[in-house]
Amino acid sequence: MQEQDTTSPSHVGAALMETERDTPGRAVPPGDLATAITAPGRELLTRLARHLPRIRAAAAPNDRDGTFPAETFHGFARDGVLGATVPAELGGMGVSRLHDVAVALLRVAEADASTALALHAQFSRGITLTYEWRHGPPPTQELAERLLRAMARGEAVVCGAVKDHGREVTQLRPDGAGGWLLSGRKTLVTMAPIATHFVVSAQAPVAEGLTLLHAPIVARDTPGLSIVDGWNGLGMRASGTLDVAFDNCPVPAGDVLARGSVGAHSDAVLAGQTVSSITMLGIYAGVAQAARDLAVDTVARRSAPPPAASRTLVAEIEARLYALRATASAAIVNADELSPRHDMDPDERGRRMMTPFQCAKVMVNQLAAAVVDDCLTVVGGATYVAEHPLARLYRDVRAGRFMQPYTYADGVEYLSAQVLGLERDNNYVSVRATRPMDGR
Amino acid sequence: MQEQDTTSPSHVGAALMETERDTPGRAVPPGDLATAITAPGRELLTRLARHLPRIRAAAAPNDRDGTFPAETFHGFARDGVLGATVPAELGGMGVSRLHDVAVALLRVAEADASTALALHAQFSRGITLTYEWRHGPPPTQELAERLLRAMARGEAVVCGAVKDHGREVTQLRPDGAGGWLLSGRKTLVTMAPIATHFVVSAQAPVAEGLTLLHAPIVARDTPGLSIVDGWNGLGMRASGTLDVAFDNCPVPAGDVLARGSVGAHSDAVLAGQTVSSITMLGIYAGVAQAARDLAVDTVARRSAPPPAASRTLVAEIEARLYALRATASAAIVNADELSPRHDMDPDERGRRMMTPFQCAKVMVNQLAAAVVDDCLTVVGGATYVAEHPLARLYRDVRAGRFMQPYTYADGVEYLSAQVLGLERDNNYVSVRATRPMDGR
Amino acid sequence: MQEQDTTSPSHVGAALMETERDTPGRAVPPGDLATAITAPGRELLTRLARHLPRIRAAAAPNDRDGTFPAETFHGFARDGVLGATVPAELGGMGVSRLHDVAVALLRVAEADASTALALHAQFSRGITLTYEWRHGPPPTQELAERLLRAMARGEAVVCGAVKDHGREVTQLRPDGAGGWLLSGRKTLVTMAPIATHFVVSAQAPVAEGLTLLHAPIVARDTPGLSIVDGWNGLGMRASGTLDVAFDNCPVPAGDVLARGSVGAHSDAVLAGQTVSSITMLGIYAGVAQAARDLAVDTVARRSAPPPAASRTLVAEIEARLYALRATASAAIVNADELSPRHDMDPDERGRRMMTPFQCAKVMVNQLAAAVVDDCLTVVGGATYVAEHPLARLYRDVRAGRFMQPYTYADGVEYLSAQVLGLERDNNYVSVRATRPMDGR
Amino acid sequence: MQEQDTTSPSHVGAALMETERDTPGRAVPPGDLATAITAPGRELLTRLARHLPRIRAAAAPNDRDGTFPAETFHGFARDGVLGATVPAELGGMGVSRLHDVAVALLRVAEADASTALALHAQFSRGITLTYEWRHGPPPTQELAERLLRAMARGEAVVCGAVKDHGREVTQLRPDGAGGWLLSGRKTLVTMAPIATHFVVSAQAPVAEGLTLLHAPIVARDTPGLSIVDGWNGLGMRASGTLDVAFDNCPVPAGDVLARGSVGAHSDAVLAGQTVSSITMLGIYAGVAQAARDLAVDTVARRSAPPPAASRTLVAEIEARLYALRATASAAIVNADELSPRHDMDPDERGRRMMTPFQCAKVMVNQLAAAVVDDCLTVVGGATYVAEHPLARLYRDVRAGRFMQPYTYADGVEYLSAQVLGLERDNNYVSVRATRPMDGR
Repeated sequence: MQEQDTTSPSHVGAALMETERDTPGRAVPPGDLATAITAPGRELLTRLARHLPRIRAAAAPNDRDGTFPAETFHGFARDGVLGATVPAELGGMGVSRLHDVAVALLRVAEADASTALALHAQFSRGITLTYEWRHGPPPTQELAERLLRAMARGEAVVCGAVKDHGREVTQLRPDGAGGWLLSGRKTLVTMAPIATHFVVSAQAPVAEGLTLLHAPIVARDTPGLSIVDGWNGLGMRASGTLDVAFDNCPVPAGDVLARGSVGAHSDAVLAGQTVSSITMLGIYAGVAQAARDLAVDTVARRSAPPPAASRTLVAEIEARLYALRATASAAIVNADELSPRHDMDPDERGRRMMTPFQCAKVMVNQLAAAVVDDCLTVVGGATYVAEHPLARLYRDVRAGRFMQPYTYADGVEYLSAQVLGLERDNNYVSVRATRPMDGR
Repeated sequence: MQEQDTTSPSHVGAALMETERDTPGRAVPPGDLATAITAPGRELLTRLARHLPRIRAAAAPNDRDGTFPAETFHGFARDGVLGATVPAELGGMGVSRLHDVAVALLRVAEADASTALALHAQFSRGITLTYEWRHGPPPTQELAERLLRAMARGEAVVCGAVKDHGREVTQLRPDGAGGWLLSGRKTLVTMAPIATHFVVSAQAPVAEGLTLLHAPIVARDTPGLSIVDGWNGLGMRASGTLDVAFDNCPVPAGDVLARGSVGAHSDAVLAGQTVSSITMLGIYAGVAQAARDLAVDTVARRSAPPPAASRTLVAEIEARLYALRATASAAIVNADELSPRHDMDPDERGRRMMTPFQCAKVMVNQLAAAVVDDCLTVVGGATYVAEHPLARLYRDVRAGRFMQPYTYADGVEYLSAQVLGLERDNNYVSVRATRPMDGR
Repeated sequence: MQEQDTTSPSHVGAALMETERDTPGRAVPPGDLATAITAPGRELLTRLARHLPRIRAAAAPNDRDGTFPAETFHGFARDGVLGATVPAELGGMGVSRLHDVAVALLRVAEADASTALALHAQFSRGITLTYEWRHGPPPTQELAERLLRAMARGEAVVCGAVKDHGREVTQLRPDGAGGWLLSGRKTLVTMAPIATHFVVSAQAPVAEGLTLLHAPIVARDTPGLSIVDGWNGLGMRASGTLDVAFDNCPVPAGDVLARGSVGAHSDAVLAGQTVSSITMLGIYAGVAQAARDLAVDTVARRSAPPPAASRTLVAEIEARLYALRATASAAIVNADELSPRHDMDPDERGRRMMTPFQCAKVMVNQLAAAVVDDCLTVVGGATYVAEHPLARLYRDVRAGRFMQPYTYADGVEYLSAQVLGLERDNNYVSVRATRPMDGR
Repeated sequence: MQEQDTTSPSHVGAALMETERDTPGRAVPPGDLATAITAPGRELLTRLARHLPRIRAAAAPNDRDGTFPAETFHGFARDGVLGATVPAELGGMGVSRLHDVAVALLRVAEADASTALALHAQFSRGITLTYEWRHGPPPTQELAERLLRAMARGEAVVCGAVKDHGREVTQLRPDGAGGWLLSGRKTLVTMAPIATHFVVSAQAPVAEGLTLLHAPIVARDTPGLSIVDGWNGLGMRASGTLDVAFDNCPVPAGDVLARGSVGAHSDAVLAGQTVSSITMLGIYAGVAQAARDLAVDTVARRSAPPPAASRTLVAEIEARLYALRATASAAIVNADELSPRHDMDPDERGRRMMTPFQCAKVMVNQLAAAVVDDCLTVVGGATYVAEHPLARLYRDVRAGRFMQPYTYADGVEYLSAQVLGLERDNNYVSVRATRPMDGR
């Protein structure tokens, strides 16, 4: 999925010029993830730029009320942004580089992290469905093409529904007529208010000791499907994150993607899991950048010379933000390089994509939180009100540690196992399927 | 103000026994600030204990709605808790040790930090008014006695109003008849919804280049005084923190406490500023302890063995919490020791109280935030909803850095000046009076 | 062992006065572990004070050459310092509070950490042998009394020899005549150059699956005992840390202390292990204090105003050092309180002593290293020469993490098991006896 | 100076293959700075690879004795390595990318950081002299060409001598015959034992209030020049770091490079200062990588499963090392991009090169030290001997904070001034010339 027209080998130079154009007067180079490196990526930035003022203005009220910015997404649909990662052959914008997707999400997250998180869901589905369209079995290819074309027209909005609610296990059972019935409940489904389809992680017990992992794609109007309102997040409150319940929803056989089996210890799946999620690093880079810009603007406008601690914190903020962007960028570029390497051993390829992603995720989560926290300190007590943008960023940034894959604890298990050569099932969907159900 | 009956020289032994009684099954000694060391302090803990279940239960809804727990404070009034720091001679409970006040606030903060913060305001006024009653000039002594007796009866609730709103400067002008007129607006006045009186930091320009600092005590029903609703905090949302505006409020001459002059570089005032605020360290100890207890309970109940990162984080949480409590306790005990040392040079005494306080404040703010953050990581994504207690603690704990004296930046200025022998005005009220008004 | 004459209930007040006397002009209160709280403890400080200039002067050359300061220890012997922790009834100084021992070690460590580490070995043996003298079986009491009287006279220097060299296992076998034969090799035996006796951790396999832990006390001139020179430490180079080898050394039955059995999971032993080692926290407090004093002196003497980063780092150094001292002090005072509590369940007592010790150890190691590191940064490139005192402190402070009990990894296992209620053998000597022998 | 043949646009793919070849079995991608991106850079790695076993073997004894690895450098001379950064037209290897120089230094530093530091001095001079050869005035071009040709032949070894010794000020005075006389003393001159020439930072007072900065190039056999032995570093002990004294050394007018004037506030010089020093980031990446490899190898070989803390630390080490390499790489690639941008405003170009360098330097110093420290913790007490490789790395890594430009304190001044728009002289050579002389 990487056959894009990379027009410029020198993206740093391009970044420089773009920075000059975008933020006149900014003295400090942005580190990295500065600008898109393909023409479609640049076009996406251009289209998004039109929406940023509105997104920025709506961030505070939507955060306060937990309102999903549906109007913004209607605008995205009209502009083709919802088909950004759909191949041009299918009517999409053809943004195929994860790097460019991450840059786009960074720009949106600077204005509002919730909007970026929801948009990520659509971008991510575009990328993974494109993979199915190119490499899947024929029925899957047809399904993928249908959805992708609809995404490009702004008619399909496709969410991932991965995490089971509480002790629930979402299961697929044969309907006896060659199709399936889906039951269970998913939580933390982002962009759900406007979703037209859900890609659901489900288990299908097929025999004693063998449980297959499937990903049925379920249309919103399927009988038995209901959206359960009521999530009230600490942050990312405008991301449209809800529960979705399935009560014997019928799913045609052709609408089910195969995802291996529980306990298979297949590292090949790590490639897809990396591609699905790694661009979220751009969101946290955007959150940290927004916090930094707010803090610097505030301090620079003060008439008294900055006190010693402010100078020290500002320098540390700048250095950490630089490292954050460089680290995220390196892992994303690595994924872009390895993604099309179908010549490699699939397990090896999976690990070589996931390991840098996890290194970067550990660091990005830590650095972004540290940057935001220091920005509050530098600006002072005025930030300690719910509607202050830094207060929102303080809540939003904390989502990073909880994003899959992996949580911090699982990331430590994964990385240490890789480094020390320990055997382990690295497929978090499979691992979850076997974990004891303690609720939380 | 330290003439209490210290019945037990061995408060660690007492702490041990108390711990055994209070938290059966807790294997880990609590570090410090474990229990009161005077009889009145222990009595205060007993009275508070009756209120804790209610406080704990109300924490979540009050946080959600930003509601001040007025009923709880009516209960405090009935039980004499609002007169805890009023001398027994004046009808109060006679808790005079800062240590015991901090332990009481810690216990309340474990249940709800907002309630503890509001209660701190009353406790702190009790302590400082007792000082005025003992050491002030006769008119001040009368005023202080009147207020203290009313606090003991549960009839007076006295807030501090220190921080000016925006670019406003709160000023006292002579009314031409021997009294004063107060105008201005104060922000971040905690416990304001039930306040009967406000101790207001105000400037009185008396001559070219000479501005006196005064603290008029203003009754709530004074003409021209209005409570301005609308603060919507990131955390500490149930603390009743509001703005109070003064429009030519008449203040009798006898109701004004002298607080030195702007630019006097007097370190003697640091003693009173320490005594006023140091017990807030107990609040952040309580917040961290509550987070730790929630996280440990959750992890201990899981059936799977804890992953490596959880064990490491739990150990780090325990160690940091221990250090936090020990550090806060050391600084508070130091203040208790020096507070009655009227034989010392007042400037020297001020610095010797403030410096350990600031060392402890820097560390408590940092350690408490780190403990809470790691607790969210250990418990996982379930904490990322607004109503989860750890989400509340994540927001509440962030208040610590903004509490006076000092902010982090001013704390660095103060500590480095002390250590390196640099000249500086350490009175933050005086410094503020001379700072350029940038708004924020 | 705590029946000392605590003359002053107010040790903070005493600390203040002592500080005033000892360090005129120091503006910053020292935090804690400021001065001794018993008369014998104060007498010990007085005697040590005479040696400090010499110790300070010898620190650099002894570090360079790895030379043990034998002359200093001869002076200690003459002054009774080597019998500081021997009860007065047996001719010693009668310092029984761990707190006072830690303060003494802190003072010595400010001058030279290696000397303090070696002196700790003797102090620690005095404390544990006093316990044997008071509570052991009659033959052990006689042995302990003989050694303690010799220590008081400056004739006995008793080292602990705990850690096996490489894959070696030090074992006691019956000699067939009621006594024992000891073979093996111990490493990291501090103060070995002048030792007259070694208390050796040894295993005695007595039956299938049952191995007893013993601590034979072996005189230096025992046949088969040899001192193996050649340790070349990263730091603590003047501590006289060497290997000691035993080749069928005869040990009379009465010279062997019982230490439980391998795998017994007895937490009662944690009390003795805490008492043996907790005063080492004073050494790292002294190292951090020395680094801070050097850095502050250097920066304060510069004529240019300190740059922002120096002010920030100096404030952070001060705050961390305060927390370090307060945390160490809290854990040591706790051990002093619980040590004589023979009414408690011995396992419970062991855990209640060890847990605060481990919390404090984790934090002291981290804070001391951070303080020293920042001091190098503040002073600058001049510190980057082997003979600079801060370069020595940078190497010395790193020893802390490796001191028993526990290493960082074992400390995490212990603390997390305590907190989460996990079963575990907490006796590190027992655990080591069962660990696979990987060398390092 | 960037006209190299960049044969592969896809250096990540190349890195992957190289990694596969170089370190069979390594499961974890290296982050970045993985391999050279130009043909000359790859050739340099090939030539260096032949020397690595010897460098690795000599690291411990040379560190112990403070011996410069002269034999290694003779080998470098024979292989043309000393002319690596000399243009091919002048007989050198033509490595012009800072990225490739940093990779080469990383590889050498994995084996021995001291050797890498000394080699950096030569590489750096090659790069800056090439700039003089291309862009300098004709006499300088001739001088540069002569030296570069000699470097390519392995006959010239050119050190930088920047930092004045103590209160000394190194000065150039006219000799009255059109030439100069140089007097003063420089400290911390690396690679001095084999130097044939020194590029010396010197001041030439030309008029009241005007002092020019010059860089005379002085041959070792110049009358009046003496090498002063005796530096005994905390680390980097085999780097041949010495003092060089100048007593009225004659310097021809043509051998003096112009470096602006004291107080000129010229940011154009920042470009050259970045280019001179930024590749040292590769050295600290190599140090951290070597520590990580040692620690991982040790832990992976242990038969017991790693304890929780070891897994957590190993994962943190991996993540930090990844961030370190990515961050260093980003700043170096940025410098490579901007270095040839002579179309830009020179001041702007200087700042855009220096700012990312300083961000990266702050983070690399911090992350490298943290990685090494955690590696000691993971491996345990065995590392606490002077000859253990991790003990050496613990000392070596600490040099990073002291390397120019800038120290941490100056880095904070620079970065905060850039971010907040504060005026400041960013030329550290100029600033030093005006700083009060406090010694240290």
